[in-house]
Amino acid sequence: MNKHAVYHRAKSNYAFAINENTLAIRLRTASKDIDEVKLHYGDYWEEVDGRWVWRKEKVNLKIEFETDLFTYWRVDINPKDYTLKYGFELIKGQDRLMYIERGFFDVDDKSIENDINSYFSFAYINSIDIFKSPSWAEDTIWYQIFPDRFCNGDKSNDPENVHHWEEKILGTHEFYGGDLRGIIEKLDYLKDLGITGLYLTPIFKSPSSHKYDTTDYFEIDPHFGTKEELRALVKEAHSRNIRIMLDAVFNHIGVTSKQFKDVIEKGEKSIYYNWFYIQKWPVTDNEGKLIGENYRNFSTDMPKLNTENEEVIQYLLKISKYWIEEFDIDAWRLDAANEVDHEFWRKFRHAVKACGKDIYILGETWFDSHIWLQGDQFDATTNYPQTKPILEWAACRSINAIDFQRMYVEAMLRYSDNVNKTMFNLLDSHDTPRIFTLAKENKNLLEICYVLLYTLPGSPCIFYGSEYAIAGENDPYCRLPMPWEKEKPEIFEKLKHIIKLRKQYKALSGTTEFIMVEEEEVIIKKVRDEEELYLIINLSNSEKNYDLSSNLIKTAAVNLMDGKDINVANITVNSEGFVLIK
Amino acid sequence: MNKHAVYHRAKSNYAFAINENTLAIRLRTASKDIDEVKLHYGDYWEEVDGRWVWRKEKVNLKIEFETDLFTYWRVDINPKDYTLKYGFELIKGQDRLMYIERGFFDVDDKSIENDINSYFSFAYINSIDIFKSPSWAEDTIWYQIFPDRFCNGDKSNDPENVHHWEEKILGTHEFYGGDLRGIIEKLDYLKDLGITGLYLTPIFKSPSSHKYDTTDYFEIDPHFGTKEELRALVKEAHSRNIRIMLDAVFNHIGVTSKQFKDVIEKGEKSIYYNWFYIQKWPVTDNEGKLIGENYRNFSTDMPKLNTENEEVIQYLLKISKYWIEEFDIDAWRLDAANEVDHEFWRKFRHAVKACGKDIYILGETWFDSHIWLQGDQFDATTNYPQTKPILEWAACRSINAIDFQRMYVEAMLRYSDNVNKTMFNLLDSHDTPRIFTLAKENKNLLEICYVLLYTLPGSPCIFYGSEYAIAGENDPYCRLPMPWEKEKPEIFEKLKHIIKLRKQYKALSGTTEFIMVEEEEVIIKKVRDEEELYLIINLSNSEKNYDLSSNLIKTAAVNLMDGKDINVANITVNSEGFVLIK
Repeated sequence: MNKHAVYHRAKSNYAFAINENTLAIRLRTASKDIDEVKLHYGDYWEEVDGRWVWRKEKVNLKIEFETDLFTYWRVDINPKDYTLKYGFELIKGQDRLMYIERGFFDVDDKSIENDINSYFSFAYINSIDIFKSPSWAEDTIWYQIFPDRFCNGDKSNDPENVHHWEEKILGTHEFYGGDLRGIIEKLDYLKDLGITGLYLTPIFKSPSSHKYDTTDYFEIDPHFGTKEELRALVKEAHSRNIRIMLDAVFNHIGVTSKQFKDVIEKGEKSIYYNWFYIQKWPVTDNEGKLIGENYRNFSTDMPKLNTENEEVIQYLLKISKYWIEEFDIDAWRLDAANEVDHEFWRKFRHAVKACGKDIYILGETWFDSHIWLQGDQFDATTNYPQTKPILEWAACRSINAIDFQRMYVEAMLRYSDNVNKTMFNLLDSHDTPRIFTLAKENKNLLEICYVLLYTLPGSPCIFYGSEYAIAGENDPYCRLPMPWEKEKPEIFEKLKHIIKLRKQYKALSGTTEFIMVEEEEVIIKKVRDEEELYLIINLSNSEKNYDLSSNLIKTAAVNLMDGKDINVANITVNSEGFVLIK
Repeated sequence: MNKHAVYHRAKSNYAFAINENTLAIRLRTASKDIDEVKLHYGDYWEEVDGRWVWRKEKVNLKIEFETDLFTYWRVDINPKDYTLKYGFELIKGQDRLMYIERGFFDVDDKSIENDINSYFSFAYINSIDIFKSPSWAEDTIWYQIFPDRFCNGDKSNDPENVHHWEEKILGTHEFYGGDLRGIIEKLDYLKDLGITGLYLTPIFKSPSSHKYDTTDYFEIDPHFGTKEELRALVKEAHSRNIRIMLDAVFNHIGVTSKQFKDVIEKGEKSIYYNWFYIQKWPVTDNEGKLIGENYRNFSTDMPKLNTENEEVIQYLLKISKYWIEEFDIDAWRLDAANEVDHEFWRKFRHAVKACGKDIYILGETWFDSHIWLQGDQFDATTNYPQTKPILEWAACRSINAIDFQRMYVEAMLRYSDNVNKTMFNLLDSHDTPRIFTLAKENKNLLEICYVLLYTLPGSPCIFYGSEYAIAGENDPYCRLPMPWEKEKPEIFEKLKHIIKLRKQYKALSGTTEFIMVEEEEVIIKKVRDEEELYLIINLSNSEKNYDLSSNLIKTAAVNLMDGKDINVANITVNSEGFVLIK
């Protein structure tokens, strides 16, 4: 047996509570190394011949996933009395080995027989500790809007020197006049597409077009509109069952804020001195130019806020509550969330969740984010590590399906089921190249990327304009104005159809099983409750035929993309094609 | 290269901040598999020929530990701007492989060259998140007292039917009359031994001798004394530089408490109904006997408290602050801490740390406790998993030195350095067999167990009476009255000497390096700053000779146990013997 590959850690993504009565227990072993894994578990003692004996129950783990490197085993247990002590029996041919917290032991080793403290422990399932995020987010289809570039609904609030909508002069201080009124105008368009949640990048007062350099968190940027217009947007969106998420940029503030301007002006005498991390004076040179090296910052025009300062904390919490209580927003997206201290986010969660609404808290992170997803900080993070294998395989074509599956599975297993349920899954954003560009403007690949996105648990997000198959390299090229003047491309209807399927078939966001993984082909089975779907993707250079008759009992099935019947014993999939079968 | 063995996870015990400027980065590989590991790291971009290139620095990791299964590599980095992106280059002969968050890649793979988001990330070192526990606890030598059995200083407060001190009738409701006055009387004895912290098992009003079934958290048990006597104990202890830790039993309460009595009496109409988890009515049968199955409990006489109920939370926090603010105690030991919800402990930490004293928070746990040691809950846990390999090898003789070293290293690597610094290390307690019994009353082995305990980072604890080499199987036999009538055994002076050495030589609690591990022998090097010590333990059946001349530059060294000179080229160690060399 390959001991090096065996991994488990209690109270982690390998052992977590799903609800008050159910613990999920996982074990990792080397791929195809172990024949069988049994969980020995329980907390029940019995007196036998004058000595106390630990009575363990046994149950087999099942394979949850298998990659080229590892097999991941899993069993869900209903522990008696909310507590579990457990160990794993690994069986390979005639060999049997116990794996417990203290290490590997012979299954018959008398020294560990009753040594309960050497086993793994899940001490107690306390319901308050179970990861819980807003259930509405499980079914939300997000749409990300970069307001300056989405739709200009009110020309009267345009900045000076506003560009013509079809111009392509991009940059931090180039404006196109998009605004809240424009978003309101397009709500029916979004509803038609199937959108149920809007994420707006920052809308608070700021000198830039991206508005991540906030001047005043309590004001709507005048070029975007007024507070009344935000109120109208929220109301109109809610009436269409669309939720609103705003962008909270709390890691840093703009240099145009009254707080940092005061520091520039008064130096060490500023009452806002401790709102920042000034490392050296002065913060400007003789010509008034900012010296970024002298204060911690995100970039020179965005000084980092000292979120360990009680005044800053109270200020930011006030903002957090203000827009919920006064404007009825539904969610906060937290910019550069992994750069702000954990302690602040704990306070933020308490403040926001106390507003009496089931607010969704989404942290922007780009990496493994387990430490923010323990239940005390975020409800979700931007799940770039989960969608990256989709991009690399199905858009960039830089990895094969075996790598795709390994990375996809590793990303999924980083978190508990409850976390994955409302993760924020996105193929592109204002901080990445456009998915259409990554796919080298290949519409077949674009479609496959979206269908894969929509088979993930969690809530998927479309970056404005990607439903129009607009192209664009990384910032600033991914931030082009929405090409309303063009005809809707084919992908629009496809995407709309996929969204409809997602709402109709709960199995799409259910558990994932890889039925087959070849060099450039995968078959994924999606299951929830009694519902089963099969997704076949063929990225090889030639048409392929598949036989699912051993999986599907019925010989007749339907391709959900076109509603046509399929003979499951002989399913033809084009090169760069897919079928989604029910 | 053995890919199955390679392990790292960002923001875990494999990547943690030691201080605002230093990150420790670890990597695990198969034992002796990899020749060299280099960290590629940095956050600096440079424009080269019109494209942006990520400039990485490189530094070699060193071997921190090597067991029979794994090699653990480590490097401490001072990141520029408090942030780090990083990956590992594994080198074996001509083979080179990059290991990053996204998986394994060829070192020359162009696709990951600038793909910073595929690497590991430590997004930002925020000082408030760095694990910090009271520095005084690093140097504390604890002594655990079970008050009923330690010393009877006031016969007037003895319970009825008190046993004669030399009797051996043990049990939950058998009393010996030990009290606070008795502890005060023995403070000079404890100071002479070298003790600097006293941990008292519960002293609040309760009907049992162990007092884990609290009747009233605001009262001292009258058989133990008065509040004035506690005040005197704290004052007298402090004047001898001895700190006081009390036992907070917040997972459950006694059935004799006014709260549970009210529930028994009034049933669903009790105002304390929601203080507990009543699963079924009634909680007593027709004869008034408690029906434990009908409410969640630790045992029938200890109903579990509902620490998700705001009234219970406020009640327990009031208690927590009361004994600090009114009686000046220094630490709380939290009973059954892993059964109480995490959210409660976060509130507890805030309340207790806000008292203006640097209170030490010790959670009782018996397993891997990483989830409680992130900085938001406990300062330390009862480190049974770390001392268990010491017991198994050096006392029980049930494992060999190779297993000992593996388990010892695995336990140590579960936490960051900052956590290990104040962990609570104990060989025995009121919940385990006595160390002398485990060692089958072998004094040589007893001494070796203690010397190993004192080479651990963290604060060591002696269970009352173990310095008298008293024996006793598990509860109730480990709770015998202190045999003051007997002459102090040899171990007393040995232990006193080891404690003195611990205070004198900071290297004893410094970093640990295993110089040699054979079947029944180990050589451990302890280092802090410029100071180096060597501990040789020989548990084989015969006398052995060791040559440390390649390690120690000086040929003359001293055995710290007897102050005698040692020729480092030829060090004789008896069977079941050890030397501690400087």
